[in-house]
Amino acid sequence: MIDRVLNVGLIGAGRIGRLHAQHLARRIPRARLAAVADVVLASAMACASEYSAPNAVDDYRRLLEDPAVEAVVVCSATDTHSQIVADAAAAGKHVFCEKPIDLTLERTDATLAGVHQAGVTLQIGFNRRFDANYRRARAAITNAEVGTVWRLHIVSRDPSPPPIEYIRTSGGMFVDMTIHDFDMARFLIGAEVEEVFATARVMVDSAIGTAGDVDTAVTVLRFANGVIGTIDNSRSAAYGYDQRVEIFGSGGMVATSNNYESTAVISDRDSVHRDLPLNFFMQRYTDSYIAEMSAFVDCVLDGGTPPVTGEDGRAALVLGLAAQRSARENRPVRVLSSNA
Amino acid sequence: MIDRVLNVGLIGAGRIGRLHAQHLARRIPRARLAAVADVVLASAMACASEYSAPNAVDDYRRLLEDPAVEAVVVCSATDTHSQIVADAAAAGKHVFCEKPIDLTLERTDATLAGVHQAGVTLQIGFNRRFDANYRRARAAITNAEVGTVWRLHIVSRDPSPPPIEYIRTSGGMFVDMTIHDFDMARFLIGAEVEEVFATARVMVDSAIGTAGDVDTAVTVLRFANGVIGTIDNSRSAAYGYDQRVEIFGSGGMVATSNNYESTAVISDRDSVHRDLPLNFFMQRYTDSYIAEMSAFVDCVLDGGTPPVTGEDGRAALVLGLAAQRSARENRPVRVLSSNA
Amino acid sequence: MIDRVLNVGLIGAGRIGRLHAQHLARRIPRARLAAVADVVLASAMACASEYSAPNAVDDYRRLLEDPAVEAVVVCSATDTHSQIVADAAAAGKHVFCEKPIDLTLERTDATLAGVHQAGVTLQIGFNRRFDANYRRARAAITNAEVGTVWRLHIVSRDPSPPPIEYIRTSGGMFVDMTIHDFDMARFLIGAEVEEVFATARVMVDSAIGTAGDVDTAVTVLRFANGVIGTIDNSRSAAYGYDQRVEIFGSGGMVATSNNYESTAVISDRDSVHRDLPLNFFMQRYTDSYIAEMSAFVDCVLDGGTPPVTGEDGRAALVLGLAAQRSARENRPVRVLSSNA
Amino acid sequence: MIDRVLNVGLIGAGRIGRLHAQHLARRIPRARLAAVADVVLASAMACASEYSAPNAVDDYRRLLEDPAVEAVVVCSATDTHSQIVADAAAAGKHVFCEKPIDLTLERTDATLAGVHQAGVTLQIGFNRRFDANYRRARAAITNAEVGTVWRLHIVSRDPSPPPIEYIRTSGGMFVDMTIHDFDMARFLIGAEVEEVFATARVMVDSAIGTAGDVDTAVTVLRFANGVIGTIDNSRSAAYGYDQRVEIFGSGGMVATSNNYESTAVISDRDSVHRDLPLNFFMQRYTDSYIAEMSAFVDCVLDGGTPPVTGEDGRAALVLGLAAQRSARENRPVRVLSSNA
Repeated sequence: MIDRVLNVGLIGAGRIGRLHAQHLARRIPRARLAAVADVVLASAMACASEYSAPNAVDDYRRLLEDPAVEAVVVCSATDTHSQIVADAAAAGKHVFCEKPIDLTLERTDATLAGVHQAGVTLQIGFNRRFDANYRRARAAITNAEVGTVWRLHIVSRDPSPPPIEYIRTSGGMFVDMTIHDFDMARFLIGAEVEEVFATARVMVDSAIGTAGDVDTAVTVLRFANGVIGTIDNSRSAAYGYDQRVEIFGSGGMVATSNNYESTAVISDRDSVHRDLPLNFFMQRYTDSYIAEMSAFVDCVLDGGTPPVTGEDGRAALVLGLAAQRSARENRPVRVLSSNA
Repeated sequence: MIDRVLNVGLIGAGRIGRLHAQHLARRIPRARLAAVADVVLASAMACASEYSAPNAVDDYRRLLEDPAVEAVVVCSATDTHSQIVADAAAAGKHVFCEKPIDLTLERTDATLAGVHQAGVTLQIGFNRRFDANYRRARAAITNAEVGTVWRLHIVSRDPSPPPIEYIRTSGGMFVDMTIHDFDMARFLIGAEVEEVFATARVMVDSAIGTAGDVDTAVTVLRFANGVIGTIDNSRSAAYGYDQRVEIFGSGGMVATSNNYESTAVISDRDSVHRDLPLNFFMQRYTDSYIAEMSAFVDCVLDGGTPPVTGEDGRAALVLGLAAQRSARENRPVRVLSSNA
Repeated sequence: MIDRVLNVGLIGAGRIGRLHAQHLARRIPRARLAAVADVVLASAMACASEYSAPNAVDDYRRLLEDPAVEAVVVCSATDTHSQIVADAAAAGKHVFCEKPIDLTLERTDATLAGVHQAGVTLQIGFNRRFDANYRRARAAITNAEVGTVWRLHIVSRDPSPPPIEYIRTSGGMFVDMTIHDFDMARFLIGAEVEEVFATARVMVDSAIGTAGDVDTAVTVLRFANGVIGTIDNSRSAAYGYDQRVEIFGSGGMVATSNNYESTAVISDRDSVHRDLPLNFFMQRYTDSYIAEMSAFVDCVLDGGTPPVTGEDGRAALVLGLAAQRSARENRPVRVLSSNA
Repeated sequence: MIDRVLNVGLIGAGRIGRLHAQHLARRIPRARLAAVADVVLASAMACASEYSAPNAVDDYRRLLEDPAVEAVVVCSATDTHSQIVADAAAAGKHVFCEKPIDLTLERTDATLAGVHQAGVTLQIGFNRRFDANYRRARAAITNAEVGTVWRLHIVSRDPSPPPIEYIRTSGGMFVDMTIHDFDMARFLIGAEVEEVFATARVMVDSAIGTAGDVDTAVTVLRFANGVIGTIDNSRSAAYGYDQRVEIFGSGGMVATSNNYESTAVISDRDSVHRDLPLNFFMQRYTDSYIAEMSAFVDCVLDGGTPPVTGEDGRAALVLGLAAQRSARENRPVRVLSSNA
């Protein structure tokens, strides 16, 4: 039963912001899009108009002053996240924040402290946890279908690299891209990582190297419970978005593969083939975006701990920074406490 | 651009009606659910309330009198379809009608004549045409990926039989269930069927036989363009909803398989296995239901021939009746003109 | 333990004959290739030399006179089978005969009578029964993994048609090609067919039609135990040899797919693809050829009924002739007794 | 044409020795099994009898004295390999030696020096290079189907651990088991490894740890050409022998999967499943054992470099020792020259 509806304000009406706006307006019956803020007022207004939000502003602080807004979804530029989350918490708003909270541990910790003090709910946007493939893989562990887990292997390759300008301010591949996989690793295994070894190279585009980043990496994780994890990352995959996981244990293995637009397989004179997998993260993960936001709304309305906490966001960042250091220094790096 | 929105009235707020109501209210930006009619007023009101329709009535004729209603979606009991479609057309409403228009050719023809005279748009609810698997299979033909088509094989098995009371008034498996496959066959091959041979048996449940129907059938189609088609039907499949197609021609083959909730494959001590395919037609065909209704709305707003016409509905019925006769008389039955 | 070895003479050193020679000489420890007969003496000698047979003749009757030869493998031209089998049986030799015994029921029956009178073992070369895929499908039935069987669907397509000269004397597609599938149907279902309906066309090559044959056919089988079978045949498949089966019953379904040279799947900018399946029947069915001959040798040495009897050969011919008639007369044809 | 036949002596008639004996006697037309040596004379005699070798001895030196023996296949205990290879080379015999030549680099080098001095052919038994899956993966690289290679991932898991007594003298998992994968990595990538990082644990059986070994490992390889490789090893897999590879590059990906006894897939009330993959290395790799030995015979008879040289054997050992050290010291280990 839809007892009551949560009024949600959107901060940042870019690509991912508009996606959340659409879901809040149309796909999540318990939510209502109450306002949109964007530094470009025209963007805020266009988004508000398309998804029937009654209010559009250019300064998010005016949105936070609106008593009708009970919760906010933060989709602004990464370097504004920590300030906005802190302000929203101080204003007593519940917060859904796209990853990461911040690229530094210091500001992340300060932000989390503010959230804690305010007592509001904070959920981080690691949407992949809500994907049907990964949920089924996780269930295979919790249902003991694969016994004691020994190995985790994550493949996470983007179709093509982001613009060089983006890469320059991204914080580096390990905290920008692999961070999703660190969260996935923690989600799937349900334990903390103690040590990280990463090796990385520039293979896709030398301009990425010039910008100070890498584009191809392997990260080895040693979990506290003995599991050995590996993450295979690339900024480019000719065949599209490649998102898979394999978990192996004493009782067997669960492996997921990519998602496709259709199941059609064509056999002709040359080969037996099918069309490429879903290529774009918004298409691949549509359902998980809806599910994460729906979970946030439920959590605010019904109470309880959000499925992805601020501490989860912090733990993934810790691993990203450790991997970065490991790759730079070519040695295993201990993770003091990824969840403290 | 969403220039303007089509106001749609729903007639029949049962299971499939509520599905269409949800899509009209939330998933199709160019549509608005304007009213709901159901012989059980409480059902109409509950549906109208859940999907924010401003009007709920028990008599569909009052809905037809509403000038705000521009088009209707007919989801009432099958034996009321022809009357309602005729009334709606006479009232100048465009009509989306769930299959079949009627179980008899006579009333079907009379209804189509009324629609034609009124000049309104009529679309029949053969939603499977909009499914991504079948669209890709059709595209493999139109893109010449399989050359000249020689063979079509459709597998269409339900998870479990409907209640015996339903079967008694269903018109029989060939016009109730196989009718979807006849339409699929015509859609995929893009040609008319000249001759039908069907063989059928009661294998699933002897009560179905007692009710005068069959539950297992094979139908052979000879198309005007030489293609030989086969349809494999069962009212029951232990592993769930089984919906596949294989098209074979001079250049190769396209084959579709079932859809699954996730791609996870588990290997354990006993087998390499995955969970069962999507089991329920509403889950399996959600996207195709949205797409067919969206196409209807576009067609009414923008003009043009609907993707599934009343004549398509008639042609599938003609094949169903021919198959029924063939199975009964155990001989091939010529189809005089399935699209005349 | 290899107690003793069976001395086998080969009659007909063509393509399939040389394959059997190789298996007898090298792959079946309990067999020894004792002699080779071929109307072309040079062929007999070349084969004998390659596979170390001590004797090569041009007249099979001289091979039958050789007391060292205990059993013969008949791989000569189809129209010589019945005479050679009769002569071999009269000479007290056990016989493995490639399908068919003869294209007419009369001569088949006469030959079987001779074999019966002589009391020798006769096995027919329906090698596909020994293929791992079909054996597993059969086991799914006998192990009750699919419950009571309701449906059988066989796909059997050749990579390309035989020469027109071959087609002219082949007896027609139903007795030349489909005969393998009739045997497979009887093997898998373990019951007899009561009625056959076949529809056939010339789609691949009009020259086949000019030669009086068809190249594309669908055959519907009604088994005594209620199972409905369908056989999908084509003389040509762009992607190669297509040999599959699907069995569906109250408990589920077993389906086999084609065999491949390797499991490698390549994902590139255009598609996710793999190489074509094994294209040539000798490559696809190597193991089944070895297994059938090994079973024959065991049967002669150890006693017992051969796994494919002369009556099995006859039953498949009966179905082929019935299908031929059904296609010609466009009506279902009763099969009086396919195994009498 | 089989111009002439190579007379081969087998040294060591254990499990793998008998497999080679069978292939030499029956599957490789250009070879003849001329003699068998085994420290247990009864084993030598049984093997010679079964595969029709004219000579059986208990002291391999007597076999080396036999002028009829042109080449030897060394399948004795690992710690005897280097001495036997050296003796065979000194006696002018060509040598096929099961991996490894020796567990130490010193003795390996000494043995290779002796082989070099004698000028005989030496091939090492890395049979997996001849497997159809891996050959196809290699071809995808050489045919530029995957572009410039960036990543290699090898999964290599045994069905169950060997006996503890075996493990004690095996040299450790990296040189006993992973050595196959090091060779596979070099074969597939066609470049040398510069640095190795390995992490290993005892997960399967604590007795393996007590015996001083590990049973679960991940090895990261940095190749000279920039490729990053990962090897995933386990001594135990509940579902059987797991042997796969994935190669990823600028143009796409090639991935192989496991081999199965049949293609049958069963859908029932619980799942869609197939039987476990081929479980035993002799069954999984039968064809590759034949192909490697056939290549050895061709190489001796026709001249040329063997497809797997002594230097290949040495290079894999170097990587095994480096991985061992890396795992022990928890740091990346440079490989000075894996092919010097």
